[in-house]
Amino acid sequence: MTRMLALLSGGMDSTVLVGHLLDLGHDVAAVSVDYGQRHRVELSAAARVAAHYGVRHDVIDLAALGRLLGGSALTDDHVEVPLGHYADPAMRATVVPNRNAIMIMCAAGIAAARGYNIVATAVHAGDHPIYPDCRPEFITAADLTVRAATTGYGDVGVLAPFVHHDKAWIVVHGTKLGAPLDLTWSCYQGDTGGDDGLSHCGRCGTCVERREAFTLAGLVDPTGYADPAGAR
Amino acid sequence: MTRMLALLSGGMDSTVLVGHLLDLGHDVAAVSVDYGQRHRVELSAAARVAAHYGVRHDVIDLAALGRLLGGSALTDDHVEVPLGHYADPAMRATVVPNRNAIMIMCAAGIAAARGYNIVATAVHAGDHPIYPDCRPEFITAADLTVRAATTGYGDVGVLAPFVHHDKAWIVVHGTKLGAPLDLTWSCYQGDTGGDDGLSHCGRCGTCVERREAFTLAGLVDPTGYADPAGAR
Repeated sequence: MTRMLALLSGGMDSTVLVGHLLDLGHDVAAVSVDYGQRHRVELSAAARVAAHYGVRHDVIDLAALGRLLGGSALTDDHVEVPLGHYADPAMRATVVPNRNAIMIMCAAGIAAARGYNIVATAVHAGDHPIYPDCRPEFITAADLTVRAATTGYGDVGVLAPFVHHDKAWIVVHGTKLGAPLDLTWSCYQGDTGGDDGLSHCGRCGTCVERREAFTLAGLVDPTGYADPAGAR
Repeated sequence: MTRMLALLSGGMDSTVLVGHLLDLGHDVAAVSVDYGQRHRVELSAAARVAAHYGVRHDVIDLAALGRLLGGSALTDDHVEVPLGHYADPAMRATVVPNRNAIMIMCAAGIAAARGYNIVATAVHAGDHPIYPDCRPEFITAADLTVRAATTGYGDVGVLAPFVHHDKAWIVVHGTKLGAPLDLTWSCYQGDTGGDDGLSHCGRCGTCVERREAFTLAGLVDPTGYADPAGAR
């Protein structure tokens, strides 16, 4: 058993990650990051998921930093959220520069302070085309950085167990583990309807990816979409 | 000329760093981090130094994160600031877990967003015994991490030009460059006297190191110390 601090966004991947680590017998806590994302409703989803699993959950407030990073569709109301497929070059607009490195390093500081040995992240192969900070070479470098920085002070490392899996695999794996996918949030537009955290737009990149993952996995999608037909 | 974003704490090392980069002909901006340090007076020193050099200066507000990191003498009022020599094991109490990794990654996000190619940090050889996140292997790993994370989105790297120099060298070098060392702040205790940012305690690790650097450099120390004799 290792003490692991999981980055939990409130989406499907990180929710399955928490279930995966618990299933392997680890001692797990979760941490979410408020970086001023317009889909902050995902933070409520993260709290629901953490409560479901009964794991400690903290939110790191980096909203002030998010404002300095500006210019991404995820943090800047003046930039429109692109619709269409997740792997489309238009999704470049959703990049928040260096986001995963920032989140991993902040989590690693908390891990070192609290005696967790690993920061776990749910980055996966489907993220690779658009997001450089989800690729294996990034994870390897981040692991080296955290290990170097915490030598003798917590000795923390970074783990990304899904880095070579795609999202459909994650949905199948999560379903097998009984992960509460119905509690999760994906939509980049934020809540577009009900206040129950269940009204996804159905048309932005991450909604299209979410739908597609359930279809590819051959599973029923529990998500309520404002546009049931999708953008495709 | 490269566009460089320098981490400026308001202390001597990072002040000399800004002067050093400008002297080499680079386009320099500065960024400071408020992580809830009790010696927040250093942020005013950073602003004074940036104004002296006429460079843009932003402060990243990570005070909320600092509270989650807790337990360091630098951020927790319940932990006493250790007195004595900087390289003493007692100085372990001043470690803020993963601090440099967090600061470098946040600055790298801002650099990527604004078109700066390098994040420069003033870590130096005198920091190595106590602080793992000041050692060359950490800088190399952080450089790899930032480059991997920003590939195609800013292509930022990390530079630490003083990593193999000691503080006395930095003081000599800064004096040669006309760096405004009199405007800088070191003391970990925060302002212990006047409101002019010039009353250092003279006894904590970083005050002892500051004094020692001027002595070793054979230069007059412009600092006003509450305890002129020091703790040694």
